[in-house]
Amino acid sequence: MITSWREVEAGVTFPEGFAAAGVRCGLKTTGEDFALIVSESEAAVAGLFTTNKVQGACVRYSRRVVRGGAAQAVVINAGNANTCNGEQGDTDNRTMADWVSRHLRIPPDRVLTASTGVIGHILPMTNIRQGVDLAVNALDSGLNADTMAARAIMTTDTYPKYRAAEADADSWVAPIRIGGMCKGAGMIAPNMATMLAFITTDARIPPPLLQEALRRACDASFNRVTVDGDTSTNDMCVLIASGMGHGEISRAGDAFEDFVVALTRLCTSLAKELARDGEGATKLVEVRVNGAVSASAAHSLARTIAESPLVKTALFGNDPNWGRVLMAAGRAMVPFDPEQATLHVGEVLVFQAGTGVAFDRDTAHDYLTNKEVVLTLDANMGECSDTVWTCDYSYDYIKINAEYHT
Amino acid sequence: MITSWREVEAGVTFPEGFAAAGVRCGLKTTGEDFALIVSESEAAVAGLFTTNKVQGACVRYSRRVVRGGAAQAVVINAGNANTCNGEQGDTDNRTMADWVSRHLRIPPDRVLTASTGVIGHILPMTNIRQGVDLAVNALDSGLNADTMAARAIMTTDTYPKYRAAEADADSWVAPIRIGGMCKGAGMIAPNMATMLAFITTDARIPPPLLQEALRRACDASFNRVTVDGDTSTNDMCVLIASGMGHGEISRAGDAFEDFVVALTRLCTSLAKELARDGEGATKLVEVRVNGAVSASAAHSLARTIAESPLVKTALFGNDPNWGRVLMAAGRAMVPFDPEQATLHVGEVLVFQAGTGVAFDRDTAHDYLTNKEVVLTLDANMGECSDTVWTCDYSYDYIKINAEYHT
Repeated sequence: MITSWREVEAGVTFPEGFAAAGVRCGLKTTGEDFALIVSESEAAVAGLFTTNKVQGACVRYSRRVVRGGAAQAVVINAGNANTCNGEQGDTDNRTMADWVSRHLRIPPDRVLTASTGVIGHILPMTNIRQGVDLAVNALDSGLNADTMAARAIMTTDTYPKYRAAEADADSWVAPIRIGGMCKGAGMIAPNMATMLAFITTDARIPPPLLQEALRRACDASFNRVTVDGDTSTNDMCVLIASGMGHGEISRAGDAFEDFVVALTRLCTSLAKELARDGEGATKLVEVRVNGAVSASAAHSLARTIAESPLVKTALFGNDPNWGRVLMAAGRAMVPFDPEQATLHVGEVLVFQAGTGVAFDRDTAHDYLTNKEVVLTLDANMGECSDTVWTCDYSYDYIKINAEYHT
Repeated sequence: MITSWREVEAGVTFPEGFAAAGVRCGLKTTGEDFALIVSESEAAVAGLFTTNKVQGACVRYSRRVVRGGAAQAVVINAGNANTCNGEQGDTDNRTMADWVSRHLRIPPDRVLTASTGVIGHILPMTNIRQGVDLAVNALDSGLNADTMAARAIMTTDTYPKYRAAEADADSWVAPIRIGGMCKGAGMIAPNMATMLAFITTDARIPPPLLQEALRRACDASFNRVTVDGDTSTNDMCVLIASGMGHGEISRAGDAFEDFVVALTRLCTSLAKELARDGEGATKLVEVRVNGAVSASAAHSLARTIAESPLVKTALFGNDPNWGRVLMAAGRAMVPFDPEQATLHVGEVLVFQAGTGVAFDRDTAHDYLTNKEVVLTLDANMGECSDTVWTCDYSYDYIKINAEYHT
């Protein structure tokens, strides 16, 4: 059981053994656009990658590195996805990794790469070279390095997203630190393939267990965030364990389960930031479904509601339009009976026994003007629950995506 | 084979034996909101209804009428969906049908009902009564009646949608007339459950064949239109055959197949209007997929591209952003290999062999400013094709849906 959880204002370098940097090399019009995370020594690595059949060069490459189980650096560029660039794309991606490898004197197959940005533009390697040089020189630990790195991976995000915590559990020999950063905003949808996320920990944990922990933590966090149902070609979640702390997870069991809980908590905190900062979002929306006949039915109901453009535009309008929520639930293609269901907007019961109930519209409307709102649908048909996080659809979603030109 | 196809400016009363009316009874803030279609004598009827598990009272009721195979009138109200209103909703729906039945002296189980509008508001029966009285008195044939009826079923549509044609085929004894009207705009998605559509014909055709013809025609037309992936609780497509013309289809065979072709042509013409007038749409987008490994793969690819918010916002911005189209194809969960695929924006080849090709951006951009644009994805993996129609996502989609309050 987790016995203490101390969140700190920090990111990927909070766990022992990590340094990071975020610099500008001119890939984006303004701001930092090149990040580096480095572990002092070779670290265990786990990773999850996009399920999209169109994949960036970094995804093909980093998947192989993760398969080796060990890594020591992650190099990330924004502003250019290096996707659909043919062999040139693969060559440029390898070159970016090689430059980091030579600079830091670590084997090239221990360097992960990640790219985000426009598809189909050749990576400007002069800028990348400059990025590597600047980032290696800027490597540091502490809040400044954490925020600069988190800023450098942003695309249409409006603020950097990073989190860190020190946890302890009665099953552990020592506290464990976990840090992380992510970027998202658009192209966010469940099924891994959701965003870039980089998580670090100072626990010592073998790669197979690390992979299992990441899979379970992502499934309960990043894979439950949806902005627009679209899924990127480049997205990945990577977890690096330096083993430089005193915590150790050597096998399945209580200590491992507690590690999964702690990792899930950190990932959930990051994931909610992705929805909160969804393109054009004015609020974070939590869609809770209870009483579904199965876990997958619960997830389908929550996801279908969370992805419905009509629900999301109603939420932007602060309108407790329960008809749209019921309509979305009704098309989720899973067992659902409106006669048995209830729907709450925040604490306000708005629908029951197949029909709307009298409720105070001003109260519900005012509630929906909050920055965080919860919709709770009880199907009352079974025992299964799920939660999906999303945001509303505003004018700015259209603006950002219509004006983000190739 | 269809040997002649003459389109005329007309709608549901163009085939022999039909009258219609569209009147105002105060259900909407402005404009006509109550429509009636009547056949001179008992007619054969076919119908397809929403797959949503939350269904309007009219859907439950009209499905039973269609099961009987015969109908003589359709009464339609806009402004109120009469959905999620419990037993009161069913009672009010039956009352609306009864009033029409008594006025026109036809059996109550020969009257179909349809409602569209806000969910969860009780139907104001005083207005409905007035609507029935006014509509019965206004019944007429001809273009004015056709357009008034088509106007009266609109919700957020910006113009009435009606079509009519006289067709002839070498397998027929006489020409057949087909007319129709529909409404859509939002909540449009495949799988029937897409809109309200009312089609009339003067052919004599038994109900089982009529149902089969409607199923096939809808599958190739209305079910291939998507605006936002959302699916309404109330939508239906009804086909009424008066048998008042000289055309007759008595069994499966060439004459029936030719009838399906003619019906599909009319329905496709109406369906494209639904996409063209999608909420906030600035253009009609045709997504063609060729070379898929199966019919369902072709459909999934076309539908996933057509429903992608990132593709739709790029189209609003007139941006030939092939990366987003490929991204959408890649997440369709069907066999697809970008290395084999090609993508055309209009006639312009923009993607081939896994990578973008050099193309004139101004030409592609200018092409996308047209009111009708075509995207063609060739998967080059098989022999199957499909087409889906959609529209772009503009600021007005958000405006309409955020401000359309309950």
